[in-house]
Amino acid sequence: MASNRVLIIGGGPAGLEAARNVTELGLSAVLVEQRERLGGTPIAAQYAALTHGFRDAEEAFNGIIERVTQNSQVALHLNSRVVGMEGAAGSFRVKIENSRGAQTLDAGAIIVATGFDHFDPARETQIYNYYEYPDVITIADLEAMLKAKQVVRRSNGASPERLCFIQCVGSRDRQIGNEYCSKVCCGIASKQAIEVKQLVPSCKVFIFYIDMRMYGYWENEIYWPAQEKYKVNYIKGIVTEVIQKGDKLLVRGEDTTMGRPMEVTMDLVVLSVGMEPSKGTKTVAQALGLKQNKYGFIDVPPESLDPTATSIPGIFVAGAAAGPKDLDDTISMAGLASLRAVTTARKSQSQ
Amino acid sequence: MASNRVLIIGGGPAGLEAARNVTELGLSAVLVEQRERLGGTPIAAQYAALTHGFRDAEEAFNGIIERVTQNSQVALHLNSRVVGMEGAAGSFRVKIENSRGAQTLDAGAIIVATGFDHFDPARETQIYNYYEYPDVITIADLEAMLKAKQVVRRSNGASPERLCFIQCVGSRDRQIGNEYCSKVCCGIASKQAIEVKQLVPSCKVFIFYIDMRMYGYWENEIYWPAQEKYKVNYIKGIVTEVIQKGDKLLVRGEDTTMGRPMEVTMDLVVLSVGMEPSKGTKTVAQALGLKQNKYGFIDVPPESLDPTATSIPGIFVAGAAAGPKDLDDTISMAGLASLRAVTTARKSQSQ
Repeated sequence: MASNRVLIIGGGPAGLEAARNVTELGLSAVLVEQRERLGGTPIAAQYAALTHGFRDAEEAFNGIIERVTQNSQVALHLNSRVVGMEGAAGSFRVKIENSRGAQTLDAGAIIVATGFDHFDPARETQIYNYYEYPDVITIADLEAMLKAKQVVRRSNGASPERLCFIQCVGSRDRQIGNEYCSKVCCGIASKQAIEVKQLVPSCKVFIFYIDMRMYGYWENEIYWPAQEKYKVNYIKGIVTEVIQKGDKLLVRGEDTTMGRPMEVTMDLVVLSVGMEPSKGTKTVAQALGLKQNKYGFIDVPPESLDPTATSIPGIFVAGAAAGPKDLDDTISMAGLASLRAVTTARKSQSQ
Repeated sequence: MASNRVLIIGGGPAGLEAARNVTELGLSAVLVEQRERLGGTPIAAQYAALTHGFRDAEEAFNGIIERVTQNSQVALHLNSRVVGMEGAAGSFRVKIENSRGAQTLDAGAIIVATGFDHFDPARETQIYNYYEYPDVITIADLEAMLKAKQVVRRSNGASPERLCFIQCVGSRDRQIGNEYCSKVCCGIASKQAIEVKQLVPSCKVFIFYIDMRMYGYWENEIYWPAQEKYKVNYIKGIVTEVIQKGDKLLVRGEDTTMGRPMEVTMDLVVLSVGMEPSKGTKTVAQALGLKQNKYGFIDVPPESLDPTATSIPGIFVAGAAAGPKDLDDTISMAGLASLRAVTTARKSQSQ
């Protein structure tokens, strides 16, 4: 049976924006989220400030969440998982499960907004010792510290005197199988470096990088101020190991600009972990029968000029479920995917 | 008088996609383009292959153009300029002029899709001698050569034996006033380097760069093959001058990885010129009273979570009129801007 509802899978930034968009175009939306609350990774991982004017993430996303929870045209299914799908564009029947059992939802179109997981540095533990050393943390850990306004060494609670970021952990790495660039880590690390300097002005902050990918306005809005106003030290260098030395961390590698070996001590080492497809992205892709690319992200046909297209007509993708995306990408894609989904659902109704 | 039409300014990729989107949502669109034909910069500058699976640009955009020209719900005004605006969201009255005179168009919402211009290397002529030396060209010039399948030295018509790209010409440059990164030039130069090697396999190709900003899948889809399959030589280096030496070009600068001065001869030097706001973007912003940022692009409120928002409610921006954007950005933004414009126009109708 043809349906003019749009089913949205995932309650993070992409899914929330899609739900709002669909109802603004006059259709009703069904939002399925596996967690018990909305907000996706920014809320679950306690993001502090967004790169957008350093706006408070919780405040920004609370506004977006409220627009959806107070919207009578959005049916919410929290703690729920998509487990199967039948039908085609115009009349999908999607099976979801939660603790109360299973049910089938009709939808004219589907938007997959299942996002990413941070790369788990356990897979590089032999180099960086994330799980061995309390003072080796990730950008996600630091984000939560920044949100709590307490950047401290986990080992002893002291303020760090020297802190460094190691870029491209789990990205641009053939050995691990993630050849892609995760796109946002250069911007996030630079934003966090500024926030660390704001909280602990005496702390010396270093960023070891391969290329600083501060595209567009990130260059003038974040990268230049980080260097000039906040004196963040950017070092083009490859870190080969992090080892404990007394109560400090010894960071070894090569300063490729200076062309010489590098050995520096740090109080806190922050791993700029990249994006991988979330577990939800992989299981939803399987449940819907969507093609995934070699990394497990939702495949967008390579020659397509539609960044939200998938291998199945009537199913669209928004945000990092399709690969590394920044917040602007995600919000723009949610707009396009909503438009395509509404058009698809309406067409089937009028036939 | 309230109007449910959407007025779109600019007939490039963003404007064409917006026109299609608006009509798919059931409203009519008015498309105003100052040139005599549609397609924007990709068509006017004779782009060869897109980064999307190296798809032929003309073929891809012809499809997009056709969808608009054959669409009875799109009113086309070619050779026309926007010269003034009155009213507000829901009931804009926009004055346009062409050779037959002036007229006023009603619209409920407006989408600005006026794009970018390539940076004019005349402003760095003292260094790179673009207008002095025939064998110093830009990525736009090379794109047209690639489209004609003839990559040759302009000075003598011979195939180049050695060709180099110089990145960041007119970008990341405070002296010129363009501190931002133009986002796409690393990807475009790398794509062109591959195409040069495909056409002239014996040619040695070099790319002099500051950072290779191959974000997301460009890393694995373009950057890795360029290095491994096509043997493009990437050199982190700053070029300080290009001078004629016999019938060759002498490129002088510093190899920052090797930490030594660099002096190499080339047959063709390609300047990777960045993006600046098009003249149309500046004049349309003035005609509509839209705030521009310090570079002249349409200002998107800095803390906004809507990449298509402008300083005037009911007016939205899509594509490079808002700053450096790639094609995915542009198409996604056109989706979001269309959705917002349609919602705005509809709201005013129902009031």
